[in-house]
Amino acid sequence: MTTLDDLPIRDDLRGKHPYGAPQLNVAVQLNTNENPYPPSEALLDDLARAVRQGAATLNRYPDRDAVELRKDLADYLGHGLTASQLWAANGSNEILQQALQAFGGPGRSAIGFEPSYSMHPIIAAGTSTRWIEGGREEDFSLDPDRAVALIERHRPDVVFLTSPNNPTGTALPLPVIERVLAAAPGMVIVDEAYFEFARTGTPSALTLLPRHPRLIVTRTMSKAFAMAGARVGYLAADPAVIDALLLVRLPYHLSTLTQAAARVALAHRGELLGTVEALRRERDATVTWLRQRGLSVADSDANFVLFGKFPDRHAVWEGVLDRGVLIRETGPAGWLRVSIGTSDEMAAFRAALEGVLS
Amino acid sequence: MTTLDDLPIRDDLRGKHPYGAPQLNVAVQLNTNENPYPPSEALLDDLARAVRQGAATLNRYPDRDAVELRKDLADYLGHGLTASQLWAANGSNEILQQALQAFGGPGRSAIGFEPSYSMHPIIAAGTSTRWIEGGREEDFSLDPDRAVALIERHRPDVVFLTSPNNPTGTALPLPVIERVLAAAPGMVIVDEAYFEFARTGTPSALTLLPRHPRLIVTRTMSKAFAMAGARVGYLAADPAVIDALLLVRLPYHLSTLTQAAARVALAHRGELLGTVEALRRERDATVTWLRQRGLSVADSDANFVLFGKFPDRHAVWEGVLDRGVLIRETGPAGWLRVSIGTSDEMAAFRAALEGVLS
Repeated sequence: MTTLDDLPIRDDLRGKHPYGAPQLNVAVQLNTNENPYPPSEALLDDLARAVRQGAATLNRYPDRDAVELRKDLADYLGHGLTASQLWAANGSNEILQQALQAFGGPGRSAIGFEPSYSMHPIIAAGTSTRWIEGGREEDFSLDPDRAVALIERHRPDVVFLTSPNNPTGTALPLPVIERVLAAAPGMVIVDEAYFEFARTGTPSALTLLPRHPRLIVTRTMSKAFAMAGARVGYLAADPAVIDALLLVRLPYHLSTLTQAAARVALAHRGELLGTVEALRRERDATVTWLRQRGLSVADSDANFVLFGKFPDRHAVWEGVLDRGVLIRETGPAGWLRVSIGTSDEMAAFRAALEGVLS
Repeated sequence: MTTLDDLPIRDDLRGKHPYGAPQLNVAVQLNTNENPYPPSEALLDDLARAVRQGAATLNRYPDRDAVELRKDLADYLGHGLTASQLWAANGSNEILQQALQAFGGPGRSAIGFEPSYSMHPIIAAGTSTRWIEGGREEDFSLDPDRAVALIERHRPDVVFLTSPNNPTGTALPLPVIERVLAAAPGMVIVDEAYFEFARTGTPSALTLLPRHPRLIVTRTMSKAFAMAGARVGYLAADPAVIDALLLVRLPYHLSTLTQAAARVALAHRGELLGTVEALRRERDATVTWLRQRGLSVADSDANFVLFGKFPDRHAVWEGVLDRGVLIRETGPAGWLRVSIGTSDEMAAFRAALEGVLS
């Protein structure tokens, strides 16, 4: 039998394992930051109708440039943005891959400040972009002086920022982003996948776009829009950045069905963003409870909470799993991450953790 | 205003233009090898139902490994294949990109025999795989001795074959593929995007899989299945090859909706492959007519026909366009390509070409 070792794969892939959280059959799934609220019947009806309509020409290629969807996304984001500043792809992972194909790649480098979204270095590897590992402070914040010093030392072609950060959960102050933008010699990507969940008053990096043509702000419909299954990521940037992405995107990358589904979700934004409000309340209650329980908790602007520290976090993760709740063993040593689910799911989480800790 | 030239894009992208056939608003579109037959009402009903059902959990990530779809694809292909030998992605372009990320990339090379599918060198560039341009004979065939000599000289990590070839249209004899497999030091990709349209008796490279773990056969649902808008490409290969692709695929690359739509199309394969029969007849009639008209025509196993030669092909292309029919100015100098449409569309094409030539 042929095995992976027998095949002429790239040397830098040898010994690697596929990315992915364990997919376990557990009643309460709080491990991949999914939105727990399924689409309403009204949304499903509209979706089925839109898909049936779009599918009537499914024998034809989709709109290669997804113009109508990009108009809708610009309208949703506001900030005076237009379709020429928006771009969409199959999940923000593909958005990031296209950005690195255009601005990173062999002989170029990207820096991220870890712990952060684990796909950033993986996508860098997939595009042969050298990865530079920046650090964070003890409290997971980003010290602007240290970030700028690292950027000046390494001169990376791409800087990854995350606001809010995953897995720690905290958003970045705008002045930190501005310091990085002033120092970075190349592109700066601010990953705002969880931005809709940020605490009131948190400013978006979108406000910086008019003055910064080398800034890319990425978003996703997987979380706030509860559409993880539809795979729609997008970005806002200077129109010249979109021109660059057109050179590397696979033609017709975004299907007719995906474009239709995303537009239906945007039309139902009132309903979908209503779940965001409920999740923010549940998130704040979870942070309060964990702190009352004597645990350390990172400030959260996301739909998940990082808490610790445990001398043996794997044992805690397993104990919670034994009680029917799947959370994520990720982030810095000693910490665990729980996604915010429904009230019932969070009650199950609290009961399970209580059972393990007492 | 910022322009593309102001941005720090990769040097090898400077001066390039986005890929893509002109998208013109013309009544008869015979330029991108789309299947002219839209889905039936029965298929649309099933699709809307399946999408509505799948979308009920759209807040959750899709099956990362698309297991059910891969079972259905194996069942469709036959040849004793199982799901472990199948893989699917957003169009065969993404399939090819993943294959080059795993087996090509910086410091590695790929060879193709041109004129051939123009995306092969573009995807090679997108993955920083050095492209080696092999040629073809005067009649667009592949001489096995010359192909083997080129492979032995360049030792490419990946060899691209196409059967049927695009834009010329002719399938490869199996012995030629076997000669290449015996000589190639790395992977061999046989692109069978148009295979369902091949003339009766044409053997598929799928028959070679049991003895060749370094063979990848790619297919698409865009053409024979009339699903260009759904973006579903797939491949069959040794299970170890699938293991390699798992290392480079973006997690959750294939949406719940795409997986559902592809499965519905496979369930309706009788209806969809019925259009293939009609298109093959129309194709053969088109070849006969063009030859009777005194033109040279490459033997076609596809849903398109390459014909020529014209001292000024652009003038012919434009003349046909002026008469309301969009064909494609592609392939070797002096030749034009027409996709096979419905009987009415082909009548319009014949009338338009007749008008230009007489």
